Amino acid sequence: MAPLRIVVWNEFVHERQNPAVAAVYPEGIHAAIAAGLRDLLPAAAVETATLEEPEHGLGAARLAGTEVLIWWGHRAHAAVADAVVERVQRRVLEGMGLIVLHSGHYAKIFQRLLGTTCSLTWREAGERERLWVCNPGHPIARGIDRCFELPHEEMYGEPFAVPPPEEQVFISWFEGGEVFRSGCCWRRGNGKIFYFRPGHETYPTYFDPNVRRVIANAVEWAQPQGQWRDECPNVRNPREKIGTPA
Amino acid sequence: MAPLRIVVWNEFVHERQNPAVAAVYPEGIHAAIAAGLRDLLPAAAVETATLEEPEHGLGAARLAGTEVLIWWGHRAHAAVADAVVERVQRRVLEGMGLIVLHSGHYAKIFQRLLGTTCSLTWREAGERERLWVCNPGHPIARGIDRCFELPHEEMYGEPFAVPPPEEQVFISWFEGGEVFRSGCCWRRGNGKIFYFRPGHETYPTYFDPNVRRVIANAVEWAQPQGQWRDECPNVRNPREKIGTPA
Amino acid sequence: MAPLRIVVWNEFVHERQNPAVAAVYPEGIHAAIAAGLRDLLPAAAVETATLEEPEHGLGAARLAGTEVLIWWGHRAHAAVADAVVERVQRRVLEGMGLIVLHSGHYAKIFQRLLGTTCSLTWREAGERERLWVCNPGHPIARGIDRCFELPHEEMYGEPFAVPPPEEQVFISWFEGGEVFRSGCCWRRGNGKIFYFRPGHETYPTYFDPNVRRVIANAVEWAQPQGQWRDECPNVRNPREKIGTPA
Amino acid sequence: MAPLRIVVWNEFVHERQNPAVAAVYPEGIHAAIAAGLRDLLPAAAVETATLEEPEHGLGAARLAGTEVLIWWGHRAHAAVADAVVERVQRRVLEGMGLIVLHSGHYAKIFQRLLGTTCSLTWREAGERERLWVCNPGHPIARGIDRCFELPHEEMYGEPFAVPPPEEQVFISWFEGGEVFRSGCCWRRGNGKIFYFRPGHETYPTYFDPNVRRVIANAVEWAQPQGQWRDECPNVRNPREKIGTPA
Repeated sequence: MAPLRIVVWNEFVHERQNPAVAAVYPEGIHAAIAAGLRDLLPAAAVETATLEEPEHGLGAARLAGTEVLIWWGHRAHAAVADAVVERVQRRVLEGMGLIVLHSGHYAKIFQRLLGTTCSLTWREAGERERLWVCNPGHPIARGIDRCFELPHEEMYGEPFAVPPPEEQVFISWFEGGEVFRSGCCWRRGNGKIFYFRPGHETYPTYFDPNVRRVIANAVEWAQPQGQWRDECPNVRNPREKIGTPA
Repeated sequence: MAPLRIVVWNEFVHERQNPAVAAVYPEGIHAAIAAGLRDLLPAAAVETATLEEPEHGLGAARLAGTEVLIWWGHRAHAAVADAVVERVQRRVLEGMGLIVLHSGHYAKIFQRLLGTTCSLTWREAGERERLWVCNPGHPIARGIDRCFELPHEEMYGEPFAVPPPEEQVFISWFEGGEVFRSGCCWRRGNGKIFYFRPGHETYPTYFDPNVRRVIANAVEWAQPQGQWRDECPNVRNPREKIGTPA
Repeated sequence: MAPLRIVVWNEFVHERQNPAVAAVYPEGIHAAIAAGLRDLLPAAAVETATLEEPEHGLGAARLAGTEVLIWWGHRAHAAVADAVVERVQRRVLEGMGLIVLHSGHYAKIFQRLLGTTCSLTWREAGERERLWVCNPGHPIARGIDRCFELPHEEMYGEPFAVPPPEEQVFISWFEGGEVFRSGCCWRRGNGKIFYFRPGHETYPTYFDPNVRRVIANAVEWAQPQGQWRDECPNVRNPREKIGTPA
Repeated sequence: MAPLRIVVWNEFVHERQNPAVAAVYPEGIHAAIAAGLRDLLPAAAVETATLEEPEHGLGAARLAGTEVLIWWGHRAHAAVADAVVERVQRRVLEGMGLIVLHSGHYAKIFQRLLGTTCSLTWREAGERERLWVCNPGHPIARGIDRCFELPHEEMYGEPFAVPPPEEQVFISWFEGGEVFRSGCCWRRGNGKIFYFRPGHETYPTYFDPNVRRVIANAVEWAQPQGQWRDECPNVRNPREKIGTPA
């Protein structure tokens, strides 16, 4: 079986502007996520891409060969070229899986696919987050206990301005008193989309074993399953005779 | 316009067995809920019914004239006659709204309509519950701020074994560390169903203004909107001629 | 009660380029749709807007006062300014209802809100279409019999590349052998969206009493119900104390 | 890898009462379906069960080892013991896949899981049915062209009184003028449910290569993916300290 082809995309901005972030992710958030995937999915082919590369590292040929794309962005959402966003959207509709992480809720590609603003409330206070499994039989929750904790995270709170998730895998409890739909599934065309909340740049969240397990599970869940037909043909020849009186 | 006809059903068992409950709800939980509805929906016709009445107060004629039914049960789920459950289910499919409260998650009628066990985790420790609005534009959240609190409630935790809600109106945060999908909407046939979590019998939850507002909003949301056609006719005469070669 | 404020938008291109279309809709498709609405919803305030007007007749002030927008486009989808599309999208998320008709399946605004291409198959052969009611209790089907027929229409066939509809109101049968999900509901933010298939420019579909009834029903169904909160506030002050050991 | 364990259940009544049915299915409908599965899924373990066997062939031990159950019933729905229906429901919630065929729309187990009557309209006129693929990327449509035809089938028409399908795979066109949602997906608990319309007992539908392909695809799609936790534990020890002032 051919290896599953995964690309981890990161804007890679905070890590080079903020020493506190560089201390946590010296090689970038993408490198930490990719390391987790290589560890848990040794048969997969895991690559990374960043904003500064030509076409943000998401040229047509590369995307055509990508089966699951992971997206981390925050500061530089506006710097992502619309042409690249449209290309990624087309690939999702064709069947490429998309995992959107944390502040990626405001990425152009996520808003484009969901059709809403994806806004939320937030607080940066390094508080405790506990993610509860709402659907213990879901493939994305495989190997996760009833809940797991992150000792320090940014808070995201409801309302999360997204269409109703088709499947709710996780909901977060925050020490400061809020809740959030932290693991949500949607389909668009032939593509599966998973939003996963944790991952503020100042905390070592992407080294956490549960977070790594969820991302690896989500990659397996999101891989393409069939071939989408998405065209607008004029089917001139009817299958039944037209013109018979009813 | 004819008044909206509402029936508040309560098993009315705890209140007569447990003095602590009787102290909170001397006339029964149903009386407190009905009082809230009469206050907020003065044009509605609000009645009550209890387990001990003939046919549990839900005879065929009465149900036929009921537009929204509210359900509170706990101890005596098994004592509800299957024939009454089937009658209620038929009325929901025809269009009667159904509001299921708190421990009603295990009521036969709720399980029948959803098809699952509706299990959850729980703890009785009188802890603080904060209900967050996930969908501020939803009619059931009208007049509710970003969140509201109940100082002492029983805890219900995820996983809540229900089909994915079609609309998520509230999610609860609990002081002890859990979360729960506290306000969920489904449709079955022509009927709308709303599950609303709060309301343990030992706390004065049904006197809380926010809880009363949510129940009144839910009643208005759940009222019948059309006429269901639910039959299995043999339509002998086709609208098109059969037997023409394709 | 203030009148419901409706705007019927039409690109108004075919009617001025094609005499056959002008013969059917001498004042434009928008005028025919508006006449139907004025007849069935006499208390509503019905206006029209077209592509050639400044800002396509959808300036900020006008949109802010519009509660339901109806959209017919075909030839000139690309000519609709992106800024106007974004403004309409924002208003839908705030709560404005949107009814997208026929070839509007390829309108930018519809693709933006659904996140997919909305492609389909088609044939122009003037064939018979029969629209079946899938959900007889739905408000949009009120007053419609089990099905209704249009003697001559363009055919649209599956697959219709949209996210799974939240409610399926109509499915069409075509004389030439195809089927199509002709009446579909979605929500985005606080806004309700209804796609309704019939209405090719060369047939008098928008004079048909059943089509007019469905559009009027859809307008009533889609009117705003609440107030959306869609912002991204930093909630600095937590409701619970942070820093307590678990 | 252990073989996938499939049980094909058939009431097996028509075949022994009606010579016309026996001529088409001399060994029973279950035998024809099982033969198709053995051919397309040679690694699977395919067994059959019928109404007349003790516990209808669905004893606790056997069900516990079944991963996907296929259900064909018509005449004898009422003869299926409620205890067996409850046992099957529990297994579905645990994760067993369930494929309900044709007249099984009125089976107790299907109504129990969906919560509605599942009624529809029908006509027995041996007419042509054409099943269109609505979701070409869905695993259940794998290997199926844009549509396929059955030359003679019983007609089922809308409205189909079921909750909104989570995924729509097929919609049928009928020669006599009706349409029907012929391939529908739902989840209940950890179990996946697929309803597939074709298969009237007087036609050789279960020998049709496309029908066999769809059933085999559905079996693969419906196989269990995880482990459901469905219990109602009292979690006495909170994860956070209770009693702190907010």
